[in-house]
Amino acid sequence: MTIETLTDLFEHTLKDIYYAEKQVRKALPTLAARADDEALTEAFDWHLKEADGKIGRLESAFAHLGKPAAGETCPAIDGIIDETHELIGEVTDADTLDAALIAAAQAIAHYGITRYGTLCVWAEELGHADIRNLLEESLSHEKDFDSSLSHLAEKRLNAEAKKAA
Amino acid sequence: MTIETLTDLFEHTLKDIYYAEKQVRKALPTLAARADDEALTEAFDWHLKEADGKIGRLESAFAHLGKPAAGETCPAIDGIIDETHELIGEVTDADTLDAALIAAAQAIAHYGITRYGTLCVWAEELGHADIRNLLEESLSHEKDFDSSLSHLAEKRLNAEAKKAA
Repeated sequence: MTIETLTDLFEHTLKDIYYAEKQVRKALPTLAARADDEALTEAFDWHLKEADGKIGRLESAFAHLGKPAAGETCPAIDGIIDETHELIGEVTDADTLDAALIAAAQAIAHYGITRYGTLCVWAEELGHADIRNLLEESLSHEKDFDSSLSHLAEKRLNAEAKKAA
Repeated sequence: MTIETLTDLFEHTLKDIYYAEKQVRKALPTLAARADDEALTEAFDWHLKEADGKIGRLESAFAHLGKPAAGETCPAIDGIIDETHELIGEVTDADTLDAALIAAAQAIAHYGITRYGTLCVWAEELGHADIRNLLEESLSHEKDFDSSLSHLAEKRLNAEAKKAA
């Protein structure tokens, strides 16, 4: 594939994140099933529900461009998810696994933050205000997911401090 | 490898980011060489110099733990860098390539942000204040790198708006 203009690059990156969202949706039930902490399972379930919203918004973005929604293999998200599955297979303790799952999910969230952030700027550069609004909504969701995971990581930390006191 | 305790997970993740930093250091000269915008080249050169600092701080963290500095293959950063090289090979226009390079480098920065962020929380949980300070310094650098790239992306956007006016 040849990418010449910013429009080409924008469409290419939409396909990249569309593929990524579908891979994340496939991976999330495993993360939710392996989590021990109830609040962590809930965070994964909520993000799984949101994944459909994000995929739907990307399909609307493709429709705005008059293009069929299509994914393109994204080695970055494949690597992030492979690493998650590898890690899950190595951790033997439930509490340590929760810490690992939070970290893995934050790596997934940060991939979303960086890609949606970039796409928002390009949508503006290209004058696609409607598409920008759709992408902004997904960006905001990714940031919320990351924050809720940071909150769970802090909760673990405080529980640990309490035990030591 | 079996990971049972948070200490095991912490060491595993230190090895992951140590490997990742070395891969990023290898990739950065290509990004710098392909950038057209002078400020973008400078941002890459500055980040390349900082890479040595981050690797050195990780080596100090291993020393604090009384462990030899060692990397462990990290499929996530491999995927992010593979995707970057693929993209670079596909873009034919210099200005579009700059936009693609900014996006690729922000994906790299966000991987650093998420990993160092996690490691800082775990260092605190494990009572390694000295290591936490080292990791915090690298986290802060990753955030600065991401911000400087966002600034360059905004600069492009403003230049585009000026052309259209």
